[in-house]
Amino acid sequence: MDERAALADLADRLPNAGDDCAVVDGQVITTDMLHERTDFPAGTTRYTAGWRAVGASLSDVAAMGADATAAVAAYGAPSFEAGELAAFVDGAEDVCHAVGAEYVGGDLDSHDEFTVATTAIGSVAAPVHRSGASPGDAVCVTGTLGRSAAALELFDRGDTNRANELFQFEPRVRAGTALRPYAAAMMDSSDGLARSLHQLAEASGCGFAIEAPLPIDPAVDELTDTPQERRESGLFFGEDFELVCTLPEPDVSEAREAVPCPLHRIGTATEHGVTLDGETFPDRGYSH
Amino acid sequence: MDERAALADLADRLPNAGDDCAVVDGQVITTDMLHERTDFPAGTTRYTAGWRAVGASLSDVAAMGADATAAVAAYGAPSFEAGELAAFVDGAEDVCHAVGAEYVGGDLDSHDEFTVATTAIGSVAAPVHRSGASPGDAVCVTGTLGRSAAALELFDRGDTNRANELFQFEPRVRAGTALRPYAAAMMDSSDGLARSLHQLAEASGCGFAIEAPLPIDPAVDELTDTPQERRESGLFFGEDFELVCTLPEPDVSEAREAVPCPLHRIGTATEHGVTLDGETFPDRGYSH
Repeated sequence: MDERAALADLADRLPNAGDDCAVVDGQVITTDMLHERTDFPAGTTRYTAGWRAVGASLSDVAAMGADATAAVAAYGAPSFEAGELAAFVDGAEDVCHAVGAEYVGGDLDSHDEFTVATTAIGSVAAPVHRSGASPGDAVCVTGTLGRSAAALELFDRGDTNRANELFQFEPRVRAGTALRPYAAAMMDSSDGLARSLHQLAEASGCGFAIEAPLPIDPAVDELTDTPQERRESGLFFGEDFELVCTLPEPDVSEAREAVPCPLHRIGTATEHGVTLDGETFPDRGYSH
Repeated sequence: MDERAALADLADRLPNAGDDCAVVDGQVITTDMLHERTDFPAGTTRYTAGWRAVGASLSDVAAMGADATAAVAAYGAPSFEAGELAAFVDGAEDVCHAVGAEYVGGDLDSHDEFTVATTAIGSVAAPVHRSGASPGDAVCVTGTLGRSAAALELFDRGDTNRANELFQFEPRVRAGTALRPYAAAMMDSSDGLARSLHQLAEASGCGFAIEAPLPIDPAVDELTDTPQERRESGLFFGEDFELVCTLPEPDVSEAREAVPCPLHRIGTATEHGVTLDGETFPDRGYSH
């Protein structure tokens, strides 16, 4: 059973767990486990690892439209070098401060492979779920797509400074709370735009007609050679942490003014089917 | 740098993290990472692993005198067998229900070694810290000591049924909330009684004079051959999840009636030094 099937199986038992966060008594909570082999390519600094791991959980808080309160991390490694651990904590603290949350520590564990498990909590009276989209809604995405794909290419090429910069992203907590009054459905794009849209469509019982141009990051343009590669990196690769949401058509301009980062209209919710420029938009992407 | 030194180093930077939980806005949060090689001996069922991993975090919530709200777990394993995962979730749910909390899911991660990271949250207006003990306080401990040492011996002997039962413990959340009005200082005994007392002493700037008999679990008596082994298993081995606390002498009988499990008076807080029957009680125990 792969992770996606196993998660689907669990979702039936844990209905709270179908969104980016579980919701309990007005609190949201989310946890993620990342590890060296699949999540931290060679060249990733411990500062970036701290930033990114904690950021991934804060992104889930953002996706509920919640205010981020705090985060913790469990840090598993073969040894605890003071410099590495301090750099990790620096990154974790900095990403928390970037979104108004507090990094409050965690646990250490002797572990053969560098492994990090992060948890973030937040609060929201009326969270935004994945299930609220209706035909006719505008579909929007924050920021740009494909930063992580570009970063991996840069790690491969040995340009680790730029790769580390791209790997640090601002979790869209402020955008999420700004979107909260407008958004009908929301999630983050960590599985890639294509898969995120399919997940929103399935949860909401609707479809999406997406239209180019899509806000693909300039770094993707620079680092890919063909339109095919550009499309793969920008739309399917995932591991980006933008917000994908739907909102009523008339609210788009007001929402765009409220959100402190670019908000791109990329399409419209439909009755069924997920299409890109009229063609099927395949349901594939990053499997965590 | 070992885990203890690294944690001490971090404690200076993250003052919130010096207790069993961090406290943010009346919420407590704690996270733990456990993995197969050191925490789940051969024969541990996935049900027990789910119970114990989530229980360890709930025990930290209990140690603050907080009500437990919810828990999540990140589950890393080489494969996701439906039966194993379901058993893990059963154990996680059952331990949450035992203390009035909700298990709300988590994350899955493909991981070479079976690794679990759990996080629990709770709420409390006035948490009990490790630092509140004063000379003259009574020192008390809930339940019995040495269950995990006994369980490991049973795993070694192949009596996995009994070992699994002993490995499942009820986190002392109800005892913790009952003790909250009385306790001056509190923590859980996961590092063993001896080390826990040294940690309380250091945080509070006092000492403890402990007197036998101590409430060592009957399973320890049964499974050890010498007084030396009994003492090691009961007082130093750790990985138990009882509460160690101090409270004003006059409150002991009232607290004992309020707490829904045995509460043993084991000594008195002093000006300095940690002793057992007048001899030095060494500062050693389980290093996580």
